[in-house]
Formats: sequence, structure tokens, C-alpha cells
Amino acid sequence: MTSHFRPVALNHASRLVNHGPTVLVTSAAGERRNVMAAAWSMPVEFTPPRIAVVIDKSTYTRELVTASGAFALCLPGTALVDVTYAVGQTSGRTEDKFARHHIDARPGPVLGLPIIEAGCAAWLECRLIREPHSEDAYDTCFGEVVAAAADARIFENGRWTFGDDNAELQTIHHLGGGRFVRPGGTMLAASAPAGS
Amino acid sequence: MTSHFRPVALNHASRLVNHGPTVLVTSAAGERRNVMAAAWSMPVEFTPPRIAVVIDKSTYTRELVTASGAFALCLPGTALVDVTYAVGQTSGRTEDKFARHHIDARPGPVLGLPIIEAGCAAWLECRLIREPHSEDAYDTCFGEVVAAAADARIFENGRWTFGDDNAELQTIHHLGGGRFVRPGGTMLAASAPAGS
Repeated sequence: MTSHFRPVALNHASRLVNHGPTVLVTSAAGERRNVMAAAWSMPVEFTPPRIAVVIDKSTYTRELVTASGAFALCLPGTALVDVTYAVGQTSGRTEDKFARHHIDARPGPVLGLPIIEAGCAAWLECRLIREPHSEDAYDTCFGEVVAAAADARIFENGRWTFGDDNAELQTIHHLGGGRFVRPGGTMLAASAPAGS
Repeated sequence: MTSHFRPVALNHASRLVNHGPTVLVTSAAGERRNVMAAAWSMPVEFTPPRIAVVIDKSTYTRELVTASGAFALCLPGTALVDVTYAVGQTSGRTEDKFARHHIDARPGPVLGLPIIEAGCAAWLECRLIREPHSEDAYDTCFGEVVAAAADARIFENGRWTFGDDNAELQTIHHLGGGRFVRPGGTMLAASAPAGS
């Protein structure tokens, strides 16, 4: 299968998560690996590209992220709604969720984290920035994006191109309780710069 | 005009921002007040209800938030796309953006912050939790939600009810460069609990 994924310039990385998609957080340490769902993430800086994501301290993911100093965010498309919700309901301590849910992952280019492309719209590999207090008090983990890529059928020239022809790849946004919403119509502000 | 806003239980407050809407951050200190746009916010805790929002240290908003120890997040609906983008382009140091953009605000019930209901879908009043390091290193401000309300025509019983009949009230999600997307179809995960 030909991959439609193309690298995303790091100065455009924040655009991938700017609109609040739910993400799959992947992690690996030695032979161990895991995937969980997270609705709570946001960019915090354009340059260097930095993001924050909430990873509960009780999770297996948090254990692996702390051990390895790295995590990846993969953005599931609408095709992965069921998988995204399911991996948020069980722990990777008791089963390999990649195998259980038939999730195909390969090592990322910079940090070797499990990268999911099939069914996803984009991914970001991130190096954890150790912030013990934020991690402890708010389960908030900061990371610097060191590599990113997106499916060119839905993200091109630093911009999402949501449309009727790419509904399966569109990002999903958790409303709670297993209910998700996907992007609808795009609107351009009256005073937006030309070429936006 | 009859207000359609109803209080949101604090244990449901995270639901308001779970799907990544762009928000208007309002602030006040003494006679001064301001409003800015922020695409970067997320919940960090259900109970107590806590959120994080990125407020650049150079902004007038940050100055007022630091002075008062409080901020509010108001969620603009699609009717406010132009205003949302516009208030993100200028500083409240040189003009009263409420007056300039004809934004109607009233004091919030707990902290007295400027609350915007006309054109908005929901709002949250938050008490700043002082975290000097996160504020300094990542412009990330943590807050505890002390009051919240939403328009019952689009948020009811702790759940968004996006549909064709309430498009004007739907949240907006900034893609970058003045381009926004609104929610489209809602999807329910196969293994979601009954009643979700």
C-alpha cells in the first residue's frame, strides 16, 4: 500500500492539533509498548514546537513515557472512532492493545515510537520535557515535537483540507461518553489575511 | 431578551471544552478589562474541575489575569467567527475591544469577570492557580472552574447537542490563519455505555 503520509514542517506542527482533536498517545520502553486515547492536549509554543498532553499518573502509558522520555501523538480519523474509544477503556498492563485491536504501528523516524498511519490523519513524535511538578500536580506532560507527518489527502501546505471527499480521514473530537464529533463546514474570518 | 443560558454542574465543566473549541479569554482588574482569543486550552482534571490555557506573557490579558488571579473562558459560536479572529489581532492596551467590536458583557456570578453570552455557547469562570514556572516557561496558566453555564439550546444534561437547528451556536475551532471549522456529524463509539 502506498503511504499518503508526508513530513510536516516543524513550524507547522501546532496546526495539526490547533483545533482540538482527540489523539492516541503511543509509548515504548524496551520491549514494552502501549497506546491510549487522550482528549486533553494542546500546543503551547510555535517555536520550538511544544505541546502539552494530560496523561494520568496511574496509566501504563505514563510509566512508559517516564521511562523513555518520549511519546507520540497519532490523530485518529473517523474510521478509528471505535478503536479510539476502546483503547481508552482498558490498560496496556494486561494486554497488548495494538494486537487486540489490530492496530498497525511502525517505529517513528526520530525516537522510534510506535507510529500509527493506517486510519490516522497525522502523527507527532515528541521528546518529553521533564517537568515533575506539572506532571505530578496536573498530570500535564510537556513535550517538544521532533518529527511530524500528515496524510496529504487531508493536510497540505501546513493546512487541513477537510471536505466531503476525505471524511474517513477527518479528525475526531471527543464530547464525552464515547460520543465524538468530526469537523463540519470551514469558515474564513472576514479579516483573515489573503491566502489563508 | 430571554437568556437561554443555564448553569452547568461543575462536574460537567470539562465537557464544555473537551472537544477543543477556540475560546475568548476575558479578564478584569479594577476598571480595566480585556478580551482575547485563544485556541490553546484543555481540561486537566475532572474533580476539582481544572483547565489549562496558554496566555502569552506579552499580552494585556496576562497582565490582568496576574493582577486579579482570575480569568473566564467564553466559547464563541459560529456567529462570532469574525469577532473572535479580530480580537486576536489587536491589543486591549490601546483600545477597549468590547466597545470596538460591540461585545456585550456582564459580570460573572462568582468572580465578576466579563461574561459574554450573546453569540456564545457557554462560559466558565476560573480562579487562577498560581504556577509561576509553567506560566513563565510555557505561558500555560492553570485555573479552577468555579462557575459555568451554557446555552440550553446546544448543551443539555452535560452534553453538547450539535445539530442542524443550532448551527449559529456551534463552537468554532481555529485551524490557523483565520480559518475555523465547526462541528459536523456526531458519531457514537460501538462500545460506548448505554445512554451516552
